[in-house]
Amino acid sequence: MHEEVPATELLQNARQYFLPAVSVDNVIFGFHQDELRVLLLRMRASRKWALPGGYVFKEEEIDDAATRILKRRTGLQNLFLQQFYTFGSTSRTRIEVVKEFFSEFNPELLENSWLMQRFITVGYYALVEYGRVIPQPDEFSDRCTWHELNNLPKLIFDHGHIIDKALQAMRLQLNYQPIGYNLLPKEFPLKSLQVIYEAILGRKLDRGNFNRKILAASILDKKEKLYSGAAHKAPYLYSFNKKKYFAALKNGLKLGF
Amino acid sequence: MHEEVPATELLQNARQYFLPAVSVDNVIFGFHQDELRVLLLRMRASRKWALPGGYVFKEEEIDDAATRILKRRTGLQNLFLQQFYTFGSTSRTRIEVVKEFFSEFNPELLENSWLMQRFITVGYYALVEYGRVIPQPDEFSDRCTWHELNNLPKLIFDHGHIIDKALQAMRLQLNYQPIGYNLLPKEFPLKSLQVIYEAILGRKLDRGNFNRKILAASILDKKEKLYSGAAHKAPYLYSFNKKKYFAALKNGLKLGF
Repeated sequence: MHEEVPATELLQNARQYFLPAVSVDNVIFGFHQDELRVLLLRMRASRKWALPGGYVFKEEEIDDAATRILKRRTGLQNLFLQQFYTFGSTSRTRIEVVKEFFSEFNPELLENSWLMQRFITVGYYALVEYGRVIPQPDEFSDRCTWHELNNLPKLIFDHGHIIDKALQAMRLQLNYQPIGYNLLPKEFPLKSLQVIYEAILGRKLDRGNFNRKILAASILDKKEKLYSGAAHKAPYLYSFNKKKYFAALKNGLKLGF
Repeated sequence: MHEEVPATELLQNARQYFLPAVSVDNVIFGFHQDELRVLLLRMRASRKWALPGGYVFKEEEIDDAATRILKRRTGLQNLFLQQFYTFGSTSRTRIEVVKEFFSEFNPELLENSWLMQRFITVGYYALVEYGRVIPQPDEFSDRCTWHELNNLPKLIFDHGHIIDKALQAMRLQLNYQPIGYNLLPKEFPLKSLQVIYEAILGRKLDRGNFNRKILAASILDKKEKLYSGAAHKAPYLYSFNKKKYFAALKNGLKLGF
């Protein structure tokens, strides 16, 4: 994997390392306390929030760049990472905002900097296990923290729009691919999975219908009952059948939510 | 709309006009004689087939570049054009193939040409009315013709893979967005729409099920019977209800094919 390029080196010599005009932005979703959350960075100089992103090394696959950035910011690898859209508007970044970003550095370095060009950005989303993530700010940020999807801070550039598009893509994905593997612990009641589907869809689902559809998909194994005081009312626990889950990820499902 | 940049000017001064490292490729589908077809260019010098594509002007939205290329090659505008994937592999283009492309020009022009860099390409697909298209080769090609999806010639670079991905995206799209508006004449029997769905899905559908699902989607208006010798057996004709069709395109459908 490529080494991280130090900040001053990036500002002075980025064009030696990176593919021009192309960046990658990752929308990293985690699930905690019944809420879908997004991992965001706070830029040190401007105090503004942004998606974890970066540039693509000249000899690096774009998918590998997204994976590298995900690993750097979360400490995790081998995660489900999905390209969902490329954002190519001419007005998506503003030079003043970029300058504000890097305002802790010598402004002369910025004047003709490679960073001031127009960038298109390739959007990826990832679903990660909240409890396993060790958030790591990058060289330009002082915080890397989770934010509730329903209560996001103001974001730079088109990053709010990128999150909306990622959510739209996940909503479609729910209908033809399984979701949840990286978001839930090993064993969970069906209700937890329903809450994830509801968080992504942004609406409540009927419990009976949900259970029927998700069980019909044959990606779950039934486990022991969840222990509680009233054992006869306790729900069964389930786990994902890894083989069937990944087959469904590849070949598709018809869930129709 | 931007003017086309003449070939020799492109070879010498492309970097003045275009965003570096980014191209656009259009997979243009048409429907004729019960077959899904793709519009391809034959490169004049190498005699190899390629997707219609191009570069993005420095101040041009990527979507607008795709629209411009579609208009130039088909003569049509206001078509359904959908971004579906960005291809970012480092091995997707090969310098030797690029050189062969342009071998009718002075090889010295090519040596340090902007065209020899690595490109990522943003893929779009379009569905167009076969009968209305007037195919136009570009400056580097001598033919622009339709090819049956099931009988494609060998394609340059990763263009075969790009067509496969476009087809996959359309298959998913069938389940949540209507398709067919630009592919069929104003009035048509349900069977014609079924044949399009079958061509995209690559499998036969049950007629009764298809009719039930597509009518339940409420995007069709029933018209007069198709005239034939045996009037009592003639199928009804339908047309797309434009208002409902475009609402469904925006808000989604649940067809579940």
